[in-house]
Amino acid sequence: MNREFQAICNYMESCMRDMAHDREHVWRVLSAAADIARHVPEKVDLRILTAACLLHDIGRPEQDADPSVDHAVVGAGKAYRFLTGIGWTEEDAGRVRDCIAAHRYRSGSQPPAAIEGKILFDADKLDVTGAMGIARTLLYEGAHDEPLYLIGADGMPSEGNLPGEESFIHEYCFKLSKLADRFFTDYARNIALRRMPAAEQFYLALKAEITEGCAARNWLMENLGD
Amino acid sequence: MNREFQAICNYMESCMRDMAHDREHVWRVLSAAADIARHVPEKVDLRILTAACLLHDIGRPEQDADPSVDHAVVGAGKAYRFLTGIGWTEEDAGRVRDCIAAHRYRSGSQPPAAIEGKILFDADKLDVTGAMGIARTLLYEGAHDEPLYLIGADGMPSEGNLPGEESFIHEYCFKLSKLADRFFTDYARNIALRRMPAAEQFYLALKAEITEGCAARNWLMENLGD
Repeated sequence: MNREFQAICNYMESCMRDMAHDREHVWRVLSAAADIARHVPEKVDLRILTAACLLHDIGRPEQDADPSVDHAVVGAGKAYRFLTGIGWTEEDAGRVRDCIAAHRYRSGSQPPAAIEGKILFDADKLDVTGAMGIARTLLYEGAHDEPLYLIGADGMPSEGNLPGEESFIHEYCFKLSKLADRFFTDYARNIALRRMPAAEQFYLALKAEITEGCAARNWLMENLGD
Repeated sequence: MNREFQAICNYMESCMRDMAHDREHVWRVLSAAADIARHVPEKVDLRILTAACLLHDIGRPEQDADPSVDHAVVGAGKAYRFLTGIGWTEEDAGRVRDCIAAHRYRSGSQPPAAIEGKILFDADKLDVTGAMGIARTLLYEGAHDEPLYLIGADGMPSEGNLPGEESFIHEYCFKLSKLADRFFTDYARNIALRRMPAAEQFYLALKAEITEGCAARNWLMENLGD
């Protein structure tokens, strides 16, 4: 690995914290991005794409400290300052900044414009598909004290739609299961579609085990000690 | 629910902390225990079993604060003091204490002797089988900053056997996949055997996704920026 990328990697590693967004996540995103880049018709600038992938989550510590902060916005600024600091031109550092700023695109914010930004977005989304998506979501929820499921008024597990619900069930039903609609490139969407059945099978098995436990729990609650 | 069990539940809820061992875990253990109790030849004292299930993890906060503490030992003492405090006889409180002390039985410690202790042990183990076992293990590892996998000297994910390794892969290969050997009752073992394929399918899908990412990562590490 050349010296420029070694410096970028070192800076990235100094910014990584939680286990759902550790350096292995960054490496998986970079690997997926390099793969997608070989399968799109557009010409891709690999230097821009690589730096954007390596630095896309460096704003996480600021967001963890203050959830009103958007790690994509903070990370974009940090990346720009870091890259110009190690001698990148303002233009190239600005292209990396724009990719990172748009990698969390959701309704209301700006979608990625450049192909490198679209590839970063897709590669990052791929890492929440399949078994990896399930695993990372559970790691994140464990670190943030979110439960697997909530119990509704009927004593059964919710479908993720209780007011303000934050749970694994909510995350799966409203985000993970709908990811296929969110890709910019057909190539990444096809990888997602190949991986998603493993996630769905896990979700269905978990839901069945939860429901079985709840039925027994409700019977016990009514009869305990009578 | 009668007043005695309401008091026990309230005490239990005041002691629960992390999302892998929340009150829903306790309810699932109690539900499973009541189910197992109906399917063993021995006569089971349901009052003892219910109290033991509800209180089995109340020593968790002490273990979280000091990992050298065994939550089974601490919880057994807390349960004995709580139950005698609400009017249980020393004999009955002692039987609950013995169940809780043995529920974490591993090599070197005392196995459960009474049928109520064996059922608590099996019901607690059932909650780490299947998709639920995968989910709870990942929640626990997220809360304790343990990674999904480690990378060996060959640049590929370890098989969970690196020196001192603590990772999801280690936990699955050395604990979750071997649970079927650890049950005292045939009834619980059969439930475990029914649930374990969902866990194995998830593990295999995750391992395949990790391996795919690592191969691409290694190629990139060698070629980045050259």
